Amino acid sequence: MTNPTAAMLVIGDEILTGRTRDANMHFLAGELTKHGIRLAEVRIVPDIQDRIVAALNALRAGYDTVFTSGGIGPTHDDITADAVAAAFGVGIDVRDDACAIMQDYCDRMGRELNEARLRMARIPEGARLIDNPVSAAPGFTLGNVHVMAGVPSIFQAMVAGVLPTLTGGDPLLSQNLNLQRAEGDIAVVLGGLAADFSDLSIGSYPYQRDGVYGTNIVIRGTDGARIDAAMAQLCALFPEAVA
Amino acid sequence: MTNPTAAMLVIGDEILTGRTRDANMHFLAGELTKHGIRLAEVRIVPDIQDRIVAALNALRAGYDTVFTSGGIGPTHDDITADAVAAAFGVGIDVRDDACAIMQDYCDRMGRELNEARLRMARIPEGARLIDNPVSAAPGFTLGNVHVMAGVPSIFQAMVAGVLPTLTGGDPLLSQNLNLQRAEGDIAVVLGGLAADFSDLSIGSYPYQRDGVYGTNIVIRGTDGARIDAAMAQLCALFPEAVA
Repeated sequence: MTNPTAAMLVIGDEILTGRTRDANMHFLAGELTKHGIRLAEVRIVPDIQDRIVAALNALRAGYDTVFTSGGIGPTHDDITADAVAAAFGVGIDVRDDACAIMQDYCDRMGRELNEARLRMARIPEGARLIDNPVSAAPGFTLGNVHVMAGVPSIFQAMVAGVLPTLTGGDPLLSQNLNLQRAEGDIAVVLGGLAADFSDLSIGSYPYQRDGVYGTNIVIRGTDGARIDAAMAQLCALFPEAVA
Repeated sequence: MTNPTAAMLVIGDEILTGRTRDANMHFLAGELTKHGIRLAEVRIVPDIQDRIVAALNALRAGYDTVFTSGGIGPTHDDITADAVAAAFGVGIDVRDDACAIMQDYCDRMGRELNEARLRMARIPEGARLIDNPVSAAPGFTLGNVHVMAGVPSIFQAMVAGVLPTLTGGDPLLSQNLNLQRAEGDIAVVLGGLAADFSDLSIGSYPYQRDGVYGTNIVIRGTDGARIDAAMAQLCALFPEAVA
């Protein structure tokens, strides 16, 4: 499968301490799948520059596109922009266009464009701004890295702005069959199906609900006809599921 | 801060395609924090052996303890045990004690201990079993790596079994202050506080709710008296928050 690949780097102590449950990864995963881009790895690291730089350099070398989430606000613990500049070995400073966006927003909101808010106009050299329709402070794209806010409403708005600029692949399609059978009872037969359709990804996800054991079978791929064929064979193997 | 460190490796296409929202990471993060262990990195990789091996070897070399989640069931896409054996360069085979656990469970449930279920008794050489009180099929510990199921109820039960065997550190304490102020208005003052208390971690988390902008300040560390002192100074800086 030759779809473009992406990775995500989530930056934030609040995720790793369990204070906040990350929501951006799940959102991005779904959006990328619809766009035909394969999310191939996610890393979550704390607010420590060396750790951000190391993870970012590994991911941007390994995948077509990288999305980061978190750490671009005005406070002392927002160090993502500096870390990205360091990872690319470029300078970073307050930039006029970003500054104008912040000034306009502050004027409209009756706020002061103070030293802290000016931090959010610091953009690594050579980056392109990402629009923030929620609270103005921009994200940015540098090379194959898209740097976005951690607040979910802003993250989602930025993803909506960036995705149409990326080359997608064939849509990643999937079909699902729910079997009221324990996974251990269907595994051998299912393994045979997976071998017959090795060009597809066939996932098996067991669950237990009100004491009933069941399994969801998900067939994924980019060729709809092949998925149809695999699903037809699966239904023939477990006729009771479609009775 | 010298607390023991941990990393987590989440294994599963279903997370990366957006089909399933991972719940285990957030659960583990909270449990480790209570136990005084610092979750320092998380990676999420697909069901591909090379990718699991590479991530696992990086994490087990970098942190005191590693927890994995997912991929230890009976189906063809459950490849975690083999990948862990490959990462450690040891053999893997059906083991008598794991087999006896599976046989006993199948007898009780009126199920057949077939080839697929026997796969779940394949344990890398030298590993110690982790009890699965939910559905019998064991996890295992090899070196500093704890290999656990992805189904949340089983993952949680396994964590409960493993955590008491680990050396914790001083509990990671935190205090929170909610300020009804935009982050950009408090950032400079907050930065001063963070500089005064550089032995603590002071996080700033903005939110917008019903049009009101606010910020949660979280002070974290292991020294309760220092956290009290920082919180007192924070409250003095923003007296309206505690009025």
